Amino acid sequence: MEKFNPVDHPHRRYNPLSDQWVLVSPHRAKRPWQGAQETPSQNQLPTHDPDCFLCPGNTRVTGDTNPQYSGTYVFTNDFAALMTDTPDAPQSSDPLMRCESARGTSRVICFSPDHSKTLPELTLSALAEVVRTWQEQTAELGQHYPWVQVFENKGAAMGCSNPHPHGQVWANSFLPNEAQREDDLQRAYFAQHNSPMLVDYAARELADGSRTVVETDHWLAVVPWWAAWPFETILLPKSHILRLTDLTAEQRTDLALALKKLTSRYDNLFQCSFPYSMGWHGAPFNGEENEHWQLHAHFYPPLLRSATVRKFMVGYEMLAETQRDLTAEQAAERLRSVSDLHFREA
Amino acid sequence: MEKFNPVDHPHRRYNPLSDQWVLVSPHRAKRPWQGAQETPSQNQLPTHDPDCFLCPGNTRVTGDTNPQYSGTYVFTNDFAALMTDTPDAPQSSDPLMRCESARGTSRVICFSPDHSKTLPELTLSALAEVVRTWQEQTAELGQHYPWVQVFENKGAAMGCSNPHPHGQVWANSFLPNEAQREDDLQRAYFAQHNSPMLVDYAARELADGSRTVVETDHWLAVVPWWAAWPFETILLPKSHILRLTDLTAEQRTDLALALKKLTSRYDNLFQCSFPYSMGWHGAPFNGEENEHWQLHAHFYPPLLRSATVRKFMVGYEMLAETQRDLTAEQAAERLRSVSDLHFREA
Ligand SMILES: O=P(O)(O)O[C@H]1O[C@H](CO)[C@@H](O)[C@H](O)[C@H]1O
Ligand SMILES: O=P(O)(O)O[C@H]1O[C@H](CO)[C@@H](O)[C@H](O)[C@H]1O
Repeated sequence: MEKFNPVDHPHRRYNPLSDQWVLVSPHRAKRPWQGAQETPSQNQLPTHDPDCFLCPGNTRVTGDTNPQYSGTYVFTNDFAALMTDTPDAPQSSDPLMRCESARGTSRVICFSPDHSKTLPELTLSALAEVVRTWQEQTAELGQHYPWVQVFENKGAAMGCSNPHPHGQVWANSFLPNEAQREDDLQRAYFAQHNSPMLVDYAARELADGSRTVVETDHWLAVVPWWAAWPFETILLPKSHILRLTDLTAEQRTDLALALKKLTSRYDNLFQCSFPYSMGWHGAPFNGEENEHWQLHAHFYPPLLRSATVRKFMVGYEMLAETQRDLTAEQAAERLRSVSDLHFREA
Repeated sequence: MEKFNPVDHPHRRYNPLSDQWVLVSPHRAKRPWQGAQETPSQNQLPTHDPDCFLCPGNTRVTGDTNPQYSGTYVFTNDFAALMTDTPDAPQSSDPLMRCESARGTSRVICFSPDHSKTLPELTLSALAEVVRTWQEQTAELGQHYPWVQVFENKGAAMGCSNPHPHGQVWANSFLPNEAQREDDLQRAYFAQHNSPMLVDYAARELADGSRTVVETDHWLAVVPWWAAWPFETILLPKSHILRLTDLTAEQRTDLALALKKLTSRYDNLFQCSFPYSMGWHGAPFNGEENEHWQLHAHFYPPLLRSATVRKFMVGYEMLAETQRDLTAEQAAERLRSVSDLHFREA
């Protein structure tokens, strides 16, 4: 029988952080595409858009006016998915119709007053300011909520309704699914191996190198072994850090550099403003021993073949299992083969 | 303090079939939308399209020619994600980089020779023929594979690259994530309650009625208590049935009717060809005792507000937890308020 070869043969890889498998079908990248096309974001936006809800000085849909901010700017989402004062839901003993009350808040974080500058186009000091804002929000909300989810939806393909560079932070009175799952799995790994899962994982990737996309003094971005999205990455500190709030000034400055390089490679891959959802996972603020946690960011970009052809996670993926058309190593190689200097700055 | 009210207050509901929570934020349906717009499918397609890979008599991308079929037509996907003869992957003891070989096949199921007719527009006898084809495929592939996934991706919004009415069937040498999870959870419920989870659930929904969308002699479609997608439904037999292959002729005929009514309501909601991914879950062909299983179909439609505005499962959803903007009861009410006779046939 022929020898197994991960570049030619369909196989499944296991994600130890989600306890899910992903089906890898590398031979499938050749199929033609006649389906939906994405609209890549316009080449150049104005630095100020009078119709934008997020630009400095503009009036939002609620009638509030944004200040003339010069760095980052944070405000409570005008249509927040969570409220701070939701009453408790009545207890139900029904195993098939369980319900619980949810409290929290959601805020918008404008990354820059400049309407036209996405993360890779910000200066390193402006990027460090974004990281500092993530830290401040996490610290503040972590005093009241066990889970603080910092994230960014970038691009129309990822449901972003405004191109002004911004992210969000949602605080939760509960551990959401993904947080609970990562907590459980990292805890179990730690109990078995006496070392945090993602600290061990980063060491393995640093030694191997085949899935590395960006490495700086303190940070490592790889296409994880178990990547679901075509060009998914995980961004990890090289040392053991529980939360965004624990970064040293040097780790923060270096994170700005890692973010600039990673997002520049993304934009350079298809010479477009690369859509993605990204976000941070760190130890919950639940008063527990959290040594099993390692801080990390996930980047989930939808594009597959070009600026206009995305991967659809649909039928088989929703009903059975995530499926991808290229190996993690192939994706990392593609991202390494483009410059880490943004094409507009080159 | 104010009394908890599920229509005004954010809450979480538990999905016992996936062990996941969903965040329900019903007050959020009011926010304005400036993001991406979907392109609803064209009003009327020709009955035969000379450029379609799936129409009878046409030549496919591989050079194969479709027969002049008159009912359903099944062929192996020209770019199958799985192969029947993949060699075994070498064993690895590494807990962070697990890999296993995957075998299987994927086939395309043309529902009708008529390029212009989606499921709700087929006659009841043509629909019964589709069900019969699903049964035949499941029976045949179930002899060789533990899991047979029948599904349909409908509409460009769901990654469907060809509007010719068709679905797929993928067979797997393994239990994919969703199958394994439903197997585990239904088994645990059965062990505790001595009754299959979804048989109990259907009984509860039949008694309640507030989430019911379609009811026929043998079938029930509801927006499940734990729906993730805005107009998600689950289609269940009223009696205990392990697999598609176990349907009586009467249950099959009645399933054609239930499918016609459900998909007509979907199309009528926004007067468009309603996109969705749907698929069947039934007991695996693994030689085990599978009394805990109950056959069911999931319908996952992406639309939220209109034919052009979809729900994006992005940042918070990918990183934390699925979030929805209307309650399951509100969604069911909307679907009940439109006719079950398709707008083109009315
Ligand atoms: O098989 P198709 O129609 O070519 O492709 C479609 O369905 C598949 C199965 O859900 C997905 O993996 C693809 O991303 C999607 O575009
Ligand atoms: O909060 P926004 O930008 O209005 O909305 C976007 O992000 C949210 C959080 O991921 C999602 O729930 C919405 O579906 C998406 O459109």
